[in-house]
Amino acid sequence: MPEIDIESWVCPTPLRDAPNIVMGHGGGGAMSAELIEHLFLPAFGPAAEAAMADSAVIEVGGARLAFSTDSFVVKPLTFPGGSIGDLAVNGTINDLAMAGAQPLAMSTAFILEEGTALQDIAHVAQAVGTAALAAGVKLVTGDTKVVDSGHGDGVFINTAGIGIVDPRVDIRPQRATPGDVVIVSGDIGVHGIAVMSCREGLTFATTVASDTAPLHGLVAAMIETGVDLHVLRDPTRGGVAATLNEIAKAAQVGMALDERSFPIPAEVRDACGLLGLDPLQVANEGKLLALVPADGAERVLAAMRNHPLGARAAVIGRCVAEHPGMVVARTALGGTRVVDLPIGEQLPRIC
Amino acid sequence: MPEIDIESWVCPTPLRDAPNIVMGHGGGGAMSAELIEHLFLPAFGPAAEAAMADSAVIEVGGARLAFSTDSFVVKPLTFPGGSIGDLAVNGTINDLAMAGAQPLAMSTAFILEEGTALQDIAHVAQAVGTAALAAGVKLVTGDTKVVDSGHGDGVFINTAGIGIVDPRVDIRPQRATPGDVVIVSGDIGVHGIAVMSCREGLTFATTVASDTAPLHGLVAAMIETGVDLHVLRDPTRGGVAATLNEIAKAAQVGMALDERSFPIPAEVRDACGLLGLDPLQVANEGKLLALVPADGAERVLAAMRNHPLGARAAVIGRCVAEHPGMVVARTALGGTRVVDLPIGEQLPRIC
Repeated sequence: MPEIDIESWVCPTPLRDAPNIVMGHGGGGAMSAELIEHLFLPAFGPAAEAAMADSAVIEVGGARLAFSTDSFVVKPLTFPGGSIGDLAVNGTINDLAMAGAQPLAMSTAFILEEGTALQDIAHVAQAVGTAALAAGVKLVTGDTKVVDSGHGDGVFINTAGIGIVDPRVDIRPQRATPGDVVIVSGDIGVHGIAVMSCREGLTFATTVASDTAPLHGLVAAMIETGVDLHVLRDPTRGGVAATLNEIAKAAQVGMALDERSFPIPAEVRDACGLLGLDPLQVANEGKLLALVPADGAERVLAAMRNHPLGARAAVIGRCVAEHPGMVVARTALGGTRVVDLPIGEQLPRIC
Repeated sequence: MPEIDIESWVCPTPLRDAPNIVMGHGGGGAMSAELIEHLFLPAFGPAAEAAMADSAVIEVGGARLAFSTDSFVVKPLTFPGGSIGDLAVNGTINDLAMAGAQPLAMSTAFILEEGTALQDIAHVAQAVGTAALAAGVKLVTGDTKVVDSGHGDGVFINTAGIGIVDPRVDIRPQRATPGDVVIVSGDIGVHGIAVMSCREGLTFATTVASDTAPLHGLVAAMIETGVDLHVLRDPTRGGVAATLNEIAKAAQVGMALDERSFPIPAEVRDACGLLGLDPLQVANEGKLLALVPADGAERVLAAMRNHPLGARAAVIGRCVAEHPGMVVARTALGGTRVVDLPIGEQLPRIC
């Protein structure tokens, strides 16, 4: 880990070397990665694990424990299909599930803005409790802070979770292997468009509801197939594009996708066209990407389609040995395009 | 757990039944307790553990795992003796230590405000790394979110931690027993006055530096005495007064303190006099309160005084069977006074 000289530090990419934080640093794309790689990790120094991924796996008394955290700052607090409360529970459960873990316990920490209506907080807390009950995870510890009016935004929630990793699995991005089949568990881009559709006056003909959902049950069904699952990831901020780029980089493999196979609802496609967004870069909150060996892909796909949260699962591409670190897609017109890591923030404060 | 009717819910204490969050709800006193007991817990419903204390203890594969979280919103980010980065690491370590646990791993989640200088963030991150290294805890997973300018305040940090509870101990507030000796590990009220002294233009003749410190080493030394430690708690928000009131309520015991025995530095006493604060209600970030059986108190006290963070440890009172749930202090003039749970916020955003 290189040391940094904080006094003279500038962001390494000249194009975006602003001396201050911009919204793009929170987008889950290239700028987020730069902030972590070039500022946080060197500043943390030797106390930081090199990876600091979405979740960590720790050996405790013979068991493998998954541990994860996320803060939630979505705006507005409530949107079609969910609220910040659902996201806060499901998001952390999903980070645990992507390591092959079943959730055990969760913490909740609220940062409340002075002047926020108690009723609004009660609604959010009720959504937290309902989502946790539905997912079978206990809320065991917590914290509440209050900040002055104008220095917060209603409610921010942090959740952290611990879970037990299934002893049969070894799931991590580095295991992506040429030949692996890339499966997505359902429709792409729904959460981002749902939040966008109710913010800043934008409305579309059809209401798109967020896909927020806990995915540990779906993952358990996939594990039960006995197929050696190589990689699982939930494509949240930065969407499918960011997630597949990160996996390609971590494992130094290429990805070859087929655009015609992407399950994208018509209303998401229309909204993205109108807004100039790439649906692959739009956040999902109840979907996963799986990379599995080709000879087990049919079994995994069948198990996913038998689960309510995987009914529309589809194969969208393959890992390849060519162009390591790069994701390319065959377009509907038969050409190919590079699927880039988004730079910054398409849809700020989406989760 | 009673259900609540969110639409008609009002705060149960008529005196403070404002329909909105006020700063006092974050003060760690009576209003914080009301918010948790009467709003969060009923709204969470059956998914919440009844207690939701500062830390939870969970059985995993034969080991007892402590799990805790705190968000940090201290203002300013840097103050004499420390910064939000130290607090975020030490605060969560201390919540684990108060369950008798040694810290194993920590998560860090940042909420950054658009426009914050990257250098300021690097300084905070470096303080996090330095504190974690000093305490021997690994930063294993994390998250970064960005909120629009005017909807955050520079940097908020959440940390969550997991630790292994020493198999020899059973430490919890409910174990406070009449006859127990109440020990404080050192000077009282230092952190709150340090933050106050550099905020809002207030200055005092002497610089008071925050006592922020990780207490797991001190706790390990106390456990090594073999004395059956009944209760450990770090008196943060709401100070010694809030912590002892909570223990008295949890165990339904009384507390009888002796004001003349409180280790309060002269500059803290002077500052409190000037500001009209009770030093017992001022936050500490590197102190602990221990309730131990009388026949082991001398051994525990000796072990504490042998440790750098317990050099000024002192006996400040006893648990009594009289006035259960109430804390009283014999004053320097020989009278007695009730040491109340603070109502709301004396010193907002102290941690």
